[in-house]
Amino acid sequence: MFYHKKRLQYFTKPEKPDPILAKKMQELVGGPFGEMTVMMQYFFQGWNCRGPAKYKDMMLDIATEEIGHIEMLATTMAYLLDNAPLEQQEEAVKDPIMQGVMGGMKAEDIIMASMNPQHATVSGGGALPADSTGYPWNGRYVIASGNLMADFYSNVQAEAQGRLQAVRIYEMANDPGVKDTLAYMIARDTMHQNQWIAAIEELKADGLKNLPIPSSFPQEREKQHASYQFWNLSEGTESKEGRWAKGTAPDGKGEFEYIENPQGESEMPDPPAPDPRLHSTGKQ
Amino acid sequence: MFYHKKRLQYFTKPEKPDPILAKKMQELVGGPFGEMTVMMQYFFQGWNCRGPAKYKDMMLDIATEEIGHIEMLATTMAYLLDNAPLEQQEEAVKDPIMQGVMGGMKAEDIIMASMNPQHATVSGGGALPADSTGYPWNGRYVIASGNLMADFYSNVQAEAQGRLQAVRIYEMANDPGVKDTLAYMIARDTMHQNQWIAAIEELKADGLKNLPIPSSFPQEREKQHASYQFWNLSEGTESKEGRWAKGTAPDGKGEFEYIENPQGESEMPDPPAPDPRLHSTGKQ
Amino acid sequence: MFYHKKRLQYFTKPEKPDPILAKKMQELVGGPFGEMTVMMQYFFQGWNCRGPAKYKDMMLDIATEEIGHIEMLATTMAYLLDNAPLEQQEEAVKDPIMQGVMGGMKAEDIIMASMNPQHATVSGGGALPADSTGYPWNGRYVIASGNLMADFYSNVQAEAQGRLQAVRIYEMANDPGVKDTLAYMIARDTMHQNQWIAAIEELKADGLKNLPIPSSFPQEREKQHASYQFWNLSEGTESKEGRWAKGTAPDGKGEFEYIENPQGESEMPDPPAPDPRLHSTGKQ
Amino acid sequence: MFYHKKRLQYFTKPEKPDPILAKKMQELVGGPFGEMTVMMQYFFQGWNCRGPAKYKDMMLDIATEEIGHIEMLATTMAYLLDNAPLEQQEEAVKDPIMQGVMGGMKAEDIIMASMNPQHATVSGGGALPADSTGYPWNGRYVIASGNLMADFYSNVQAEAQGRLQAVRIYEMANDPGVKDTLAYMIARDTMHQNQWIAAIEELKADGLKNLPIPSSFPQEREKQHASYQFWNLSEGTESKEGRWAKGTAPDGKGEFEYIENPQGESEMPDPPAPDPRLHSTGKQ
Amino acid sequence: MFYHKKRLQYFTKPEKPDPILAKKMQELVGGPFGEMTVMMQYFFQGWNCRGPAKYKDMMLDIATEEIGHIEMLATTMAYLLDNAPLEQQEEAVKDPIMQGVMGGMKAEDIIMASMNPQHATVSGGGALPADSTGYPWNGRYVIASGNLMADFYSNVQAEAQGRLQAVRIYEMANDPGVKDTLAYMIARDTMHQNQWIAAIEELKADGLKNLPIPSSFPQEREKQHASYQFWNLSEGTESKEGRWAKGTAPDGKGEFEYIENPQGESEMPDPPAPDPRLHSTGKQ
Amino acid sequence: MFYHKKRLQYFTKPEKPDPILAKKMQELVGGPFGEMTVMMQYFFQGWNCRGPAKYKDMMLDIATEEIGHIEMLATTMAYLLDNAPLEQQEEAVKDPIMQGVMGGMKAEDIIMASMNPQHATVSGGGALPADSTGYPWNGRYVIASGNLMADFYSNVQAEAQGRLQAVRIYEMANDPGVKDTLAYMIARDTMHQNQWIAAIEELKADGLKNLPIPSSFPQEREKQHASYQFWNLSEGTESKEGRWAKGTAPDGKGEFEYIENPQGESEMPDPPAPDPRLHSTGKQ
Repeated sequence: MFYHKKRLQYFTKPEKPDPILAKKMQELVGGPFGEMTVMMQYFFQGWNCRGPAKYKDMMLDIATEEIGHIEMLATTMAYLLDNAPLEQQEEAVKDPIMQGVMGGMKAEDIIMASMNPQHATVSGGGALPADSTGYPWNGRYVIASGNLMADFYSNVQAEAQGRLQAVRIYEMANDPGVKDTLAYMIARDTMHQNQWIAAIEELKADGLKNLPIPSSFPQEREKQHASYQFWNLSEGTESKEGRWAKGTAPDGKGEFEYIENPQGESEMPDPPAPDPRLHSTGKQ
Repeated sequence: MFYHKKRLQYFTKPEKPDPILAKKMQELVGGPFGEMTVMMQYFFQGWNCRGPAKYKDMMLDIATEEIGHIEMLATTMAYLLDNAPLEQQEEAVKDPIMQGVMGGMKAEDIIMASMNPQHATVSGGGALPADSTGYPWNGRYVIASGNLMADFYSNVQAEAQGRLQAVRIYEMANDPGVKDTLAYMIARDTMHQNQWIAAIEELKADGLKNLPIPSSFPQEREKQHASYQFWNLSEGTESKEGRWAKGTAPDGKGEFEYIENPQGESEMPDPPAPDPRLHSTGKQ
Repeated sequence: MFYHKKRLQYFTKPEKPDPILAKKMQELVGGPFGEMTVMMQYFFQGWNCRGPAKYKDMMLDIATEEIGHIEMLATTMAYLLDNAPLEQQEEAVKDPIMQGVMGGMKAEDIIMASMNPQHATVSGGGALPADSTGYPWNGRYVIASGNLMADFYSNVQAEAQGRLQAVRIYEMANDPGVKDTLAYMIARDTMHQNQWIAAIEELKADGLKNLPIPSSFPQEREKQHASYQFWNLSEGTESKEGRWAKGTAPDGKGEFEYIENPQGESEMPDPPAPDPRLHSTGKQ
Repeated sequence: MFYHKKRLQYFTKPEKPDPILAKKMQELVGGPFGEMTVMMQYFFQGWNCRGPAKYKDMMLDIATEEIGHIEMLATTMAYLLDNAPLEQQEEAVKDPIMQGVMGGMKAEDIIMASMNPQHATVSGGGALPADSTGYPWNGRYVIASGNLMADFYSNVQAEAQGRLQAVRIYEMANDPGVKDTLAYMIARDTMHQNQWIAAIEELKADGLKNLPIPSSFPQEREKQHASYQFWNLSEGTESKEGRWAKGTAPDGKGEFEYIENPQGESEMPDPPAPDPRLHSTGKQ
Repeated sequence: MFYHKKRLQYFTKPEKPDPILAKKMQELVGGPFGEMTVMMQYFFQGWNCRGPAKYKDMMLDIATEEIGHIEMLATTMAYLLDNAPLEQQEEAVKDPIMQGVMGGMKAEDIIMASMNPQHATVSGGGALPADSTGYPWNGRYVIASGNLMADFYSNVQAEAQGRLQAVRIYEMANDPGVKDTLAYMIARDTMHQNQWIAAIEELKADGLKNLPIPSSFPQEREKQHASYQFWNLSEGTESKEGRWAKGTAPDGKGEFEYIENPQGESEMPDPPAPDPRLHSTGKQ
Repeated sequence: MFYHKKRLQYFTKPEKPDPILAKKMQELVGGPFGEMTVMMQYFFQGWNCRGPAKYKDMMLDIATEEIGHIEMLATTMAYLLDNAPLEQQEEAVKDPIMQGVMGGMKAEDIIMASMNPQHATVSGGGALPADSTGYPWNGRYVIASGNLMADFYSNVQAEAQGRLQAVRIYEMANDPGVKDTLAYMIARDTMHQNQWIAAIEELKADGLKNLPIPSSFPQEREKQHASYQFWNLSEGTESKEGRWAKGTAPDGKGEFEYIENPQGESEMPDPPAPDPRLHSTGKQ
């Protein structure tokens, strides 16, 4: 069960409306690594968790925080979409030189042409559960496998891409209010990246999980001759110089081997004849 | 440019057809963490890479390998879908007890009812670019941000979830041929998990990138008082016991702090009045 | 901001696992009218609301309740997916008559063939943010227009279809635990249908909104000769007998008129010639 | 069976091309509440209807009308997309001040940059089955449950949101031809809102259906103690002031009750241990 | 404008309900090559057509026919979904041998487990605008480019794949009523394949369009040295034996040339350095 | 198995960055008829092919070529997205007349407002697996039926629409480098259209397949009285003038017949009563 409190974790009011910035910020709301994703991802991981209580509680702590992040962004966007230019300017530009160049367009027309049309027509000036191209958020973004080690790597990635995207929009924006709010969200992403890396360490320390994921599958059942081979399939051997091509593998269970001229181990089989009831094309 | 060679990296022929297993294996072809994802993800990362040649070459090596993995799976599935039961059995079951229980259904009917219908109707006995529920693969699964550190964490995750899913299907299958082919693919996932973790180490060793991602953004521009706080928003303090709540954070740049009774820092602002041209609901 | 409390609004444990029922119940989690929709819909409506506080508070009350409904369903589904049959039965059926009919299939095989494969492979025994066919929840399900009258009709509909679907699954299920939990959710849907109809009344009583929606648009700007005409375009005049074909319209602003042989008011214009740079097909 | 007649229900030719307006108007064609939705929704409701003939005929009347609405919009859009600016202007702006500001861009360039690219590349100057962000129309927008009461509330909503969106585009447009055609479509939406509300009344009058939906489910099977409770889960009690918190509920079957400090009725159960074959994370 | 007549183009009532067949037949309603696609495709082609009237009229003739095909299928499916098994059978199988094998499942349970759950829960026994895996129809299936030659090839393909799929379901079905109705639809697909091939001939005869599409683009602007080369990029030269590798090309404008060892014409350029504001990974 | 060679099939460097052109070119990468589609389509057709080796080899030749086409486009787009304008211009326009008209916007602002936001925020200056509106590529675009005749018509269509779209972008672009690269891709589309038409001829010459597709289905099982009838369902008889309405059909198996006043052959049946457990609306 949940309770809502009428405060925001952090918020600075935008200085002025900016529907173009609102369009871009949708990526942080409803993009693959936006706040809707991390909220839902941590909830499904937490609700489906069958491991120790400290992990489950931790996941629900942060999931609950992320609902509030959507709220912060939705509040910000209401200000950015306020007084959006909604009407084409009727009076023609008077200056003849200007008219030749601009054909009578004004800044308002240009913004109206470039903003997300649904911010006016569909939501009436509010945030949308969609990304910056208008594509809706969807449930395939959520990763919750029941294997905490796999999931925590996913969470590091989500916070890494999330912070990267918040930073890019911070660089693009010049509204001091928006930048200030983003500076807080970026700080929380710093925390959350660290949190999930710490959680991976904790899983190892607790002896619950390890590399390779899932570590509970006995490696003698995999084809171990291929478990640490690097296959050089793109012309040139620059890839030979990296850490991934030599030395002990990070899981400590094998030595990397660089296969410079790899060949397929198996012949291509001849496909079975098609079923006549399917009316496919056979050999003759 | 690419060249195709008519060998498979590894392959053991399935012993017998099994359309239900084919339905499940679609997850490994066209699911969010299937081979189509890793192939496309590593290609877009590689093609968009503006970093050192060893990274770019390495990404194109593995992307090229992954095309061959789709080929291995498609070949396997042609055998699993061979001779699928395509017609309802017309003759009724004769034994009266059986008839009461089964209503005349045979194993063939049951398989026909449960298989992916498109494996017959749409693809005529071949693999589909879709997951195990029939949902098509889509480009939002691909993560290629230009920031290699962020992308490599994504790649670890993709290989972790990919190996987990291959292992789960290995456990569910009992066809020795399919299990043997899966045992090879699981081994390659072992390699690829290790490879991407090694690549993260290499980025750090090369001084190119570090935590938090993106490390090129000056942390003094984020709200640093919040950068290492753990917010306890789910009842109970089990989450206090974890590595994420105390000690130095993994990035080495702060100390974790546990906020047991967190309060929002900002008041909820009063939203601006709606634009009359939008015909939304205002205060009076 | 939000807080999570470790209690469930209501819950009765399922008596036994049932992966097929779990597949069907996904509709209530992630279908177009599942709990994810109402939660997100009421939040976006509430966050984007610029009207009186009592409406905004009410929407956030119910949105917050709905998060807990997903939690109830996810908890239920963990039990339904417990001990799912994950392996094909290897030993053949011994009785020769049985073998002929069943081909060695057991109930476990049948369930394994029919369950949502992702409940094993992808989520490892947990709920998914998807509907009963495996299609992911998406943000286009959310309706939040800024016009409360339009939105409240949408909310009645969501709760009506939601209750209808819960009732249908109640009828199909025979697990007493699941039925008991559903009986609670059906009761809440009763409340919520009533709540939104009451809210429509309140908007009218407050003089904020009325029919036709949006009532703030002056009707003299629409083509009023057509505003209350019923066009009979499907053969036969059974439709003439209904309330929609005669008498005063529910908005009280016009009289219904039945047009038995309707004709288009305008001629079909001749389309403009195609632009040569588009290489489309023109008249000659 | 259907017949097509070469007239339009209503049409006024746009005065001049306007690809930006065409982009926005796609919402009325292929958005969640566009003409494709209402056409398909009323057809599936009508074809699936097993109720009295007057309802079925009425649904097919209006569904048939809606095909013609797509035709009206497609015709309008062919004019709006005529002579779209398709080439970047090569000659640089000569005036040095202009050049500094505009960098050589002309109004044509700006329109070309902002229009839906598929209106040129994909459709060659025609309407698309997509919304104003380019997202394709899809079948999950269609609501046809077999329960007419549930469906008619959905239809009110579709017409309400549809009219709201047409009105918003009417406000944004300044082409007299487009406004005139929209004024007709807005009038039809007035009719259709009234029609569906009248149809709800008729269902009640005929004793076929009532509130709560579905009214055929015996309410004694739901947990009736919760059927009329309002749960105050968002801080503050503004929501107590509304019609939804006191008095007799609109279905006439209960009294609203305001629960100011609601508590969950059930304890959170301990989740079952994970299946070892799934390689998920368990308690130790 | 459209008119609906209450007859079906052709229809034979199914002999008995069959929800599994109904699941499969959804492919013909809402799959990529189902009736919804051809209806919408021919309408958008017709409405967007700027060519001679005989083409436009022909496209609208067939589009109008296709609405009726959806109606035929929806009517068929109402019968197939009638009396679907909706409840799990409570009484256990008595015979101990049976119980061991079947665990108490009956044919009704098996059908209930395998049918599309939305046919009960969502549509209440009616057709859905989705394909046989439950994936919704969407507007990206529609091809309407403004170039009639390109579009007519698409139409041949749609009717070819459509007839193939109808034939496959005809083979799978054993209900005489359904087979009879399908035999009519297959006949219409025969007509429509022929019709579109005839229409391609007519475009050539009228001198409107030719190969390669679009024939209005002057071929001297393409890199003509590559216009008729076959590149052998898959090991082995079996492809050399086909018509595509030798002789005059079908457009009559070049001779096929088989390049046995093709080499890329261009060097791979060095990518530009990343923009520092994007925080991507650069060379050092 | 595949090998990558570090050369491009053809490439000319763009003269200057152009993020708007990059947005449009996404259609050629990830649109329904972009390079991702043809690559995946030819691979799935080739991998699933059970016909003669020359066809299978030919399909894998061209599929392998298409991977390289995505590479060419991704390389081009890295240059077009280089130095994109990422920051709003802070300094206001000084000239008072300009300020009135432009409100301080510069060409950079306009480009920033119109470009695909994900080209900055998500991909960091690289190509995306999406189309020109930002909609992701998906697997439903792939057509691979097992029937080569059906598939080859699809391939003609894909190359026809693909060439049409490349030509349209060629016309819109004015960067000589991009035009030169497109001129090569257009030439390859010329080849591929011819190749697939030649392959259709070859299938006929080999006696493998013919019209109507699938030709292996005995036509006496279809309702032959309807196999060559043209139904005139749109007012007017312009459609009577075409090749499709008279003479021998292209398959040589029937004569076209023009039905000027077509009537449905069957009566509309009365739908079955609804199942009470579904709580749908019945007759009384």
